[in-house]
Amino acid sequence: MLITLTTDFGLRDSFVGTMKGVILGIAPSARIVDLSHGIGAGDIRGGAFALMTAAPFFPPETIHVAVIDPGVGSPRRAIAIRARRAIFIGPDNGVLSWAVKDEDSLEICSVEKMFSSQVSNTFHGRDVFAPAAAWLAAKREFSDLGPQLADFQRMDWPKPIRLREGWKTEVIYVDTYGNAITAFPAELTQGVQAVLLPDGKRVPFERFYAAVPRGNPLAVLGSSGFVEIAINQGNAAGELGLRSGSTVVVG
Amino acid sequence: MLITLTTDFGLRDSFVGTMKGVILGIAPSARIVDLSHGIGAGDIRGGAFALMTAAPFFPPETIHVAVIDPGVGSPRRAIAIRARRAIFIGPDNGVLSWAVKDEDSLEICSVEKMFSSQVSNTFHGRDVFAPAAAWLAAKREFSDLGPQLADFQRMDWPKPIRLREGWKTEVIYVDTYGNAITAFPAELTQGVQAVLLPDGKRVPFERFYAAVPRGNPLAVLGSSGFVEIAINQGNAAGELGLRSGSTVVVG
Amino acid sequence: MLITLTTDFGLRDSFVGTMKGVILGIAPSARIVDLSHGIGAGDIRGGAFALMTAAPFFPPETIHVAVIDPGVGSPRRAIAIRARRAIFIGPDNGVLSWAVKDEDSLEICSVEKMFSSQVSNTFHGRDVFAPAAAWLAAKREFSDLGPQLADFQRMDWPKPIRLREGWKTEVIYVDTYGNAITAFPAELTQGVQAVLLPDGKRVPFERFYAAVPRGNPLAVLGSSGFVEIAINQGNAAGELGLRSGSTVVVG
Repeated sequence: MLITLTTDFGLRDSFVGTMKGVILGIAPSARIVDLSHGIGAGDIRGGAFALMTAAPFFPPETIHVAVIDPGVGSPRRAIAIRARRAIFIGPDNGVLSWAVKDEDSLEICSVEKMFSSQVSNTFHGRDVFAPAAAWLAAKREFSDLGPQLADFQRMDWPKPIRLREGWKTEVIYVDTYGNAITAFPAELTQGVQAVLLPDGKRVPFERFYAAVPRGNPLAVLGSSGFVEIAINQGNAAGELGLRSGSTVVVG
Repeated sequence: MLITLTTDFGLRDSFVGTMKGVILGIAPSARIVDLSHGIGAGDIRGGAFALMTAAPFFPPETIHVAVIDPGVGSPRRAIAIRARRAIFIGPDNGVLSWAVKDEDSLEICSVEKMFSSQVSNTFHGRDVFAPAAAWLAAKREFSDLGPQLADFQRMDWPKPIRLREGWKTEVIYVDTYGNAITAFPAELTQGVQAVLLPDGKRVPFERFYAAVPRGNPLAVLGSSGFVEIAINQGNAAGELGLRSGSTVVVG
Repeated sequence: MLITLTTDFGLRDSFVGTMKGVILGIAPSARIVDLSHGIGAGDIRGGAFALMTAAPFFPPETIHVAVIDPGVGSPRRAIAIRARRAIFIGPDNGVLSWAVKDEDSLEICSVEKMFSSQVSNTFHGRDVFAPAAAWLAAKREFSDLGPQLADFQRMDWPKPIRLREGWKTEVIYVDTYGNAITAFPAELTQGVQAVLLPDGKRVPFERFYAAVPRGNPLAVLGSSGFVEIAINQGNAAGELGLRSGSTVVVG
């Protein structure tokens, strides 16, 4: 069984390694893949975006654990969601929701009851979410994880809005290169020629980064399936003042 | 067999990957987990703390390799320690000692003789410690690793000291969030109400981070089993001037 | 089958995790090792050096994937090289060439035709190189990967030049500690006593870092098999102004 981990723990401490120890103690043959541990501290949108874009590239039945959990220890719920191709486990704060935003028939359950004896107040990655994933990987049934739930917290997905001059959309993620990824999807890109930035600058829509001279800005259909603002071999977010939530017009 | 790696090598270079290549060449079916490669350069206390807190969460018989080794190439010893639940391999500079500080009957041996033909003077992680761990994982006996040793270097563990106004203890590790983890253990926390910082500030002892408003300081029983000074969604060490060795009073 | 990954993707985003999902979807039992994801953005020399120095420590038949690919989307070729002990897969921009610089009989093929239906213009690590490696790991023949090629792009290797006062060589890589690794190989070090830096400073050639007092510069035969300029427990490149391409004289 394949388990992925997405957290804001970073890699400086042993938090992530400890989660893996817990998993392999319960499910010795589980395969574990790090999706990202560099999500900004408490950045639920960043974690949701990472899950949403990466999960489709994993084999069916993969178990994705996401621990972006600023409310750890408070009475937020801990949940598992069974979707068509995968299972998602994490706090019920929206971080799982973008990965399943296009699905209707989801099975949801609570996972917090499962390991109540030795649970810390600060590290549910180790004490709640890793064990839940490992028990599932070790062939327990989804319905054994905990009581079924009727709903879970869905985080708004910013759909592009049609204006006269184009589509208004927003930046949903800035990657490590400084590419500012918008919520504007591949399906709508036919005929698109440029993107208008908040400062009035217009950047051309191109097929790949190297289509403009080094240092020049462009928009491009990124690998995540969304239009992104980039600078060929440069940092677009930094140089153009874009961040998660910035509004641009695609047209 | 499970092998963990803890180093101060960082992840920018290929040092850690190379150690894994060596291990998998000798023990093709070994499972390898990174505990941390972000220990500060030469920070023996930091590495010792990571090992001590993470090792209990791994399955029995796990082999933990720690390479925080500022004296590499000089005549410090390279050792393996067989403890109750696990085996620890690394330089004999104290980095392994906190993980076994509560154990009496330890078996210790030298591992430096083992691979003397092709050993570099600067990268014993690759040339000494990784091969030793891999040979063990490939089912060699512990006693085959090298000559038995009578002792090894134990690093002082700062036990809390009873004062009239509470317990004097010290910060032993600052994690990536800036939480300042003290040597004050869970067993002593009954009745604790606050922690007095070096600057005279008193922070309340709470059950979880979110028990105080965002940006406020608190003390909390951390996931490592020790009291830590934190700021809810903030960086306590940075804002409160705490670092490894800082003295606080718990009471 | 063992697959290694070397990229300039960093570990903040889910790019690397996504490549692993693709690989494990095609070759579920592949073992994957991260060589480095901290190569500087577009630093082809840095990636080539990491591959060259790490590959010899992996078991025979290991498949090494390197994605340092500033020209992604432009008409640069995507190739696989079968060498004596290993297979190398990546863009044809020189990044693979140092790892095979001493070999004559190489088999080379194009891998870009293989997965042409769903290839993005920006993330060939996921869409071209990971699938190629996974198909090979899943026991396809090398010759099935794509059309055979007559040549590939070799990047100049800076051979030391004999002068009256010693050997002129250059820095080829600066590691995370600030050690400045030169192209001067172990074979030529007999009788070497010092290295002359660009600023006229002469540093002694020693056997290990701790042979000089903390904070002092030295030259040492590094673990990669080349002479490097270091400062005992310090950052040589930073303090001595060395970088990739800096010229020094070994003598």
